Amino acid sequence: MTIDHTHAPELTSWVESANGHADFPVQNLPLGIFAPSGGTPRPGVAIGDMILDLTGVAALLPDAVAPALTGTTLNALFALPVADRVALRRAVSRLLSDDADQAIVAPMLHCADECTMHLPAAIGDYTDFYVGIHHANNVGRQFRPDQPLLPNYKWVPIGYHGRASSVRPSGVPVIRPKGQRKPPQADVPDYGPSRRLDYELEMGVWIGRGNALGEPIAIGEAGEHIAGLSLLNDWSARDFQAWEYQPLGPFLAKNFHTSVSPWVVTAEALAPFRIAQPPRPEGDPRPLPYLWDEGDQARGALAIELEVHLSTAAMRKAGTAPHRLSHGLASNMYWTIAQIVTHHASNGCNLMPGDLLGTGTISAADDSGFGSLLEISRGGSQPVMLPGGETRAFLEDGDEVVLTARASADGYVPIGFGACRADIQPART
Amino acid sequence: MTIDHTHAPELTSWVESANGHADFPVQNLPLGIFAPSGGTPRPGVAIGDMILDLTGVAALLPDAVAPALTGTTLNALFALPVADRVALRRAVSRLLSDDADQAIVAPMLHCADECTMHLPAAIGDYTDFYVGIHHANNVGRQFRPDQPLLPNYKWVPIGYHGRASSVRPSGVPVIRPKGQRKPPQADVPDYGPSRRLDYELEMGVWIGRGNALGEPIAIGEAGEHIAGLSLLNDWSARDFQAWEYQPLGPFLAKNFHTSVSPWVVTAEALAPFRIAQPPRPEGDPRPLPYLWDEGDQARGALAIELEVHLSTAAMRKAGTAPHRLSHGLASNMYWTIAQIVTHHASNGCNLMPGDLLGTGTISAADDSGFGSLLEISRGGSQPVMLPGGETRAFLEDGDEVVLTARASADGYVPIGFGACRADIQPART
Repeated sequence: MTIDHTHAPELTSWVESANGHADFPVQNLPLGIFAPSGGTPRPGVAIGDMILDLTGVAALLPDAVAPALTGTTLNALFALPVADRVALRRAVSRLLSDDADQAIVAPMLHCADECTMHLPAAIGDYTDFYVGIHHANNVGRQFRPDQPLLPNYKWVPIGYHGRASSVRPSGVPVIRPKGQRKPPQADVPDYGPSRRLDYELEMGVWIGRGNALGEPIAIGEAGEHIAGLSLLNDWSARDFQAWEYQPLGPFLAKNFHTSVSPWVVTAEALAPFRIAQPPRPEGDPRPLPYLWDEGDQARGALAIELEVHLSTAAMRKAGTAPHRLSHGLASNMYWTIAQIVTHHASNGCNLMPGDLLGTGTISAADDSGFGSLLEISRGGSQPVMLPGGETRAFLEDGDEVVLTARASADGYVPIGFGACRADIQPART
Repeated sequence: MTIDHTHAPELTSWVESANGHADFPVQNLPLGIFAPSGGTPRPGVAIGDMILDLTGVAALLPDAVAPALTGTTLNALFALPVADRVALRRAVSRLLSDDADQAIVAPMLHCADECTMHLPAAIGDYTDFYVGIHHANNVGRQFRPDQPLLPNYKWVPIGYHGRASSVRPSGVPVIRPKGQRKPPQADVPDYGPSRRLDYELEMGVWIGRGNALGEPIAIGEAGEHIAGLSLLNDWSARDFQAWEYQPLGPFLAKNFHTSVSPWVVTAEALAPFRIAQPPRPEGDPRPLPYLWDEGDQARGALAIELEVHLSTAAMRKAGTAPHRLSHGLASNMYWTIAQIVTHHASNGCNLMPGDLLGTGTISAADDSGFGSLLEISRGGSQPVMLPGGETRAFLEDGDEVVLTARASADGYVPIGFGACRADIQPART
């Protein structure tokens, strides 16, 4: 989508809290599924501190879009052509910025604080990639000191299938998983609560229109299949992972819970924040032709800053502000989102509207922006010092992890993603 | 379920083709979703050469079950307690064996040849295991000659997530996938049609009742979560797999297509064919307590014979009978089905009704029963001789692979699974 008046920095909303809002000014208009207090889940748009009920204003929206807004998920909306999503964005932008619509639209607003957020879509399949190259290097060094990056890494956008059923929206607590643990010094494994529970900072990609089984997606058309982005926390039990992951990859180390921020920041909203993919280091191979598109290289990355904050139960009790664990850039991805979508479908695998892709953990090159405790604590050997004197090598019960993100570009109003947060609850006995 | 009169060997059906039927005598009564010619998909039961429309006889079925038979999938039926599925089996058995019901039930029968089979359930998540120990040994030897079985194999029922969206019922052709291929002698990969396309003989396990996120399934209760079994072909592009699978496991090598036989042979139907799990070889570790149940060891394996047949386009043209590639036993599994279900949920991962688990390729200890061409042809180096003079190291376009299975036990009428078949179509240009 080209940049249009919906992105104009001078645009304001009659919803006062939207103007200057860190996440949801009128230039954002993210899509989600919310339930008002006592109500059923329905599609909505975040605007400032409020949520616009799209079903309540359906009569004011384009005819092509309104039928897709009647359900309890966004799958039908995601399945529509991009042009319909653009038309929806323009209509909602007008409703929320033009004072003339205030009288009719205002009754359809709900205080976000009084609503429950649900997953934006029924997720058919969830796939997690591994395109944060600094993370791959850092973790690879711990698991395989002699060969951190395997020979395929710079040719193949490495990914694997994850578990769709255990994806939960921000706010749902994570129960510490039990599983097989075999520390290097132990002769045999045992079964018990993870001792090395970690988070992973990722972006989530929501698939829009799908492709038929057997029909790959050309790299130049990948953008048409991307509905938008969220934040994603790929909770990981490192002790289970080290023991189970060979030869078929992570399984129980990951599939006990995945958190996503509930608002889908649309591809349209992100248009002003597209930037050039950072050039590959000298000597790295040029991607194979099916993964290469000049337009994608020119503007396939995103100017998004990512942050991770941690607060412990003791910190919250003492009123201590959350501790920032990291601060990095979404552009620390070796492959673009278009490349991972095209690679995923390159064998004819059919992506479906509402499928979720994780980018893989996004770490910066230096320790100011590591996307996991595994990296920050060097495999647990160098615990983080927290305000108040506590330390953390891995997560403890009561800890809360909060991911946030903000897209910004000169001349545009920055937009945010809302939080992806969850706290750790003790293992079930 | 205990064995009851529905398994009685003297029981016959007034549907004549059922009596002596290799797959679907009245002792089987597998569940599936079929569409009569020109009709919509609906639940049915295979009986001989016919299919009983369950929606058409719903008024004659137990009240607890009938509401679960109104949709186009079996998910709602699978979600019911085992007792309801048992009640359904008993009611259907009576309808099809008691002549008194013939007049009212016969109009609800359809010729199977004139029906289209659909997937039995909307598959939320598909997980593939790796519990065929001879296969793991054979393949491990090719990928890692120094260490065919990794140290975790005898402790952990190894599994990984697969792709739910590309599972198709028997009969849907497989389009040869394209992907990254890097033969050992090549310096760099290229992208093109797989040159090492293979099948994998597996059993598919359909999950019945699910478990809540965070709540493991005790090994003694795993059986209550298993609706039934099908055959499963985990089509595999070995060239893609060798290049992509490290460090996160198989991805595009597998997710382009998975075939299942469309009839779910229920856990109830299989009750007479339960046998003791073969004892672990001397020196192997005893499973951890969460995976160990004496009852499961005593009757957690199944007396099922498995066969794979191949026919090429030339063979079919010449009228040559399909060539049997292998013949083995389902008991060549190192872990029981209960163990894989319990392991899957042991970290709190929530299984859902209609989820599909693959056992992993089931190979015999010797070359009479290898479950893949990769094993039969020793990685492609020893092609199979076929009738008519053709050879196959891997699958060629036009080849058809047919999986079949038969459960038998002294004193019981054997039951079958119906075929899991598909042919290979050329890669899309």
